[in-house]
Amino acid sequence: MGFRHIELEDGRLRVLDQRYLPTRIRWYYVVDAESAHYAIRNMVVRGAPLIGVVGAFGLAFELSKGDPGPEAARAAAERLASARPTAVNLPRAVGRVLEAYLERGARGALEEARSIMEYEREAARMIGVHGARLLEDGDTVLTHCNAGALATVEYGTALAPLRVAAEEGKRIRAIATETRPVLQGARLTAFELVKDGFDTTLISDTMVGYVMSRGLVDKVIVGADRVLADGYVFNKIGTYQVAILARVHRIPFYVAMPTSTLDVRSRPEDVVIEERDPREVLYVRGRRIAPRGVRVLNPAFDGTPPEYVSAIITERGIAEPPYRESLARLLGGSDRARSAV
Amino acid sequence: MGFRHIELEDGRLRVLDQRYLPTRIRWYYVVDAESAHYAIRNMVVRGAPLIGVVGAFGLAFELSKGDPGPEAARAAAERLASARPTAVNLPRAVGRVLEAYLERGARGALEEARSIMEYEREAARMIGVHGARLLEDGDTVLTHCNAGALATVEYGTALAPLRVAAEEGKRIRAIATETRPVLQGARLTAFELVKDGFDTTLISDTMVGYVMSRGLVDKVIVGADRVLADGYVFNKIGTYQVAILARVHRIPFYVAMPTSTLDVRSRPEDVVIEERDPREVLYVRGRRIAPRGVRVLNPAFDGTPPEYVSAIITERGIAEPPYRESLARLLGGSDRARSAV
Repeated sequence: MGFRHIELEDGRLRVLDQRYLPTRIRWYYVVDAESAHYAIRNMVVRGAPLIGVVGAFGLAFELSKGDPGPEAARAAAERLASARPTAVNLPRAVGRVLEAYLERGARGALEEARSIMEYEREAARMIGVHGARLLEDGDTVLTHCNAGALATVEYGTALAPLRVAAEEGKRIRAIATETRPVLQGARLTAFELVKDGFDTTLISDTMVGYVMSRGLVDKVIVGADRVLADGYVFNKIGTYQVAILARVHRIPFYVAMPTSTLDVRSRPEDVVIEERDPREVLYVRGRRIAPRGVRVLNPAFDGTPPEYVSAIITERGIAEPPYRESLARLLGGSDRARSAV
Repeated sequence: MGFRHIELEDGRLRVLDQRYLPTRIRWYYVVDAESAHYAIRNMVVRGAPLIGVVGAFGLAFELSKGDPGPEAARAAAERLASARPTAVNLPRAVGRVLEAYLERGARGALEEARSIMEYEREAARMIGVHGARLLEDGDTVLTHCNAGALATVEYGTALAPLRVAAEEGKRIRAIATETRPVLQGARLTAFELVKDGFDTTLISDTMVGYVMSRGLVDKVIVGADRVLADGYVFNKIGTYQVAILARVHRIPFYVAMPTSTLDVRSRPEDVVIEERDPREVLYVRGRRIAPRGVRVLNPAFDGTPPEYVSAIITERGIAEPPYRESLARLLGGSDRARSAV
């Protein structure tokens, strides 16, 4: 995109404040657990891999400020991990930093945070390498929400295959759903794709069925906040209905994720769907759109059953149904795999 | 709603300017063909039955201003009918006023416009009477866009059954989709339902699949801008995907319309889907939400095949599949029926 949106500086992490995109470029500095908690909770940063990285550094910085001891460290980790409940990357990354601290002290915690960032950077690139095989020259890919560079360290998850395919010389066009209520598709996905030179079309969330029925979509790729062992996908609200619409129109529906997003222990009913502030629905960019007296639902995520998912693209390769076997096979492939989940 | 949003005054039609809802109450006066054209084109008023009525009065006022003669009258009618291409009510109503003028002069034109308004007022009430039979005490009805009083003269089409059911003592709750890009659900449907005391929940368009999968929706009722002889439904963009989602979740999907919305002559491919200004997608209430350089699609309507439609509620009764037979039967039932289409 012409600049890094996340940069490790001396004792702090500089991140692009995504709340102001695409109209303003503002920076936010993560210097401790509290500033990381605020950034994650208020969506200064978002995207499962990115909030994992930011949470990791927030805790590592906190633990480097003095020597809080195991009890305080555990409390800090717990509070940070609870900033948002749905993506598994956050508690996992924070848990790894806590563990490193308990074993090796503050220095270990910082090393672990750096290692998580590097892992995510490399994983996104490899998701692109594997996913690009699924894309043909001339394809139009629809994506929902933002699972791009801005949701990760670089490249993105859902957008990584588009980038690698373009590097390989394939002409790839994109359709971004605006993704109400927080408009990550309009504000973030369109922003980074246009910056990177992709022919990008923005649609309202109401237009997904229409563009599919008109033959304007060849493939769908979305990211994920948590994927269960059987391939059940938790992702941004609206993903579930995009998946159903893809199925009805016989369009492949792919999920792209680093294996740090896998949660092999939970069942669908165990996963907490974050219900966010009603004002996200009632206001758009500060302007009220609905009358007083109306109730609001604002689930930030939904669950898509595995039968709607054509394949799952990971940094270790592509998993196809049935996912319980294919994901386990990918995970079992290396020692590194075991350490990631 | 405590006031009439459309009122015939001396030589002019006073209508609520729906662009400012729900935050401001402003009135707009239709006094001739041009002011009606502007109101329809720019969505001061919208909704298939309402734009028919406004178009009818706009032409009737225009023809009452002098005696333009047949040729000028035809030209005025044609321009007015083209203000928006998808809803069939507009060209039909304008055509009826033109015919009355050619047969009976300016007075005939005004009488015809009045008769169209009265027909639509009564039709909406009867849609409510018939449609209320489909609703049970305790039902939650999801509706898309605004097919309420504000889309008609009174009562609405999709919302009429809710109103009559409530009058009958049934407890009915509503879920309104916000309906991007123009937000008719958030701004208009929520506004009129809350005013009328309905327990109303607003959701983003991304949340339809989620609320259905959670068992929060018992029935879906939407309006229509044009329904073909076989039951193919043109309505607000997003209707098609709501219909698919209803089918997948085994929720009845009903379409409510006066028979003035029936078009027995066209095939789906004949119907023009209006493509509106990209700024409706790029901006929300004056605030830009997407970067420069992005393309935009902004189809205002989509088509829903009859196999997704559980029943069509009209002022003459309820049509069930196959619609070619059931709609013809309803239409054949009276002389008045023939005159309406």
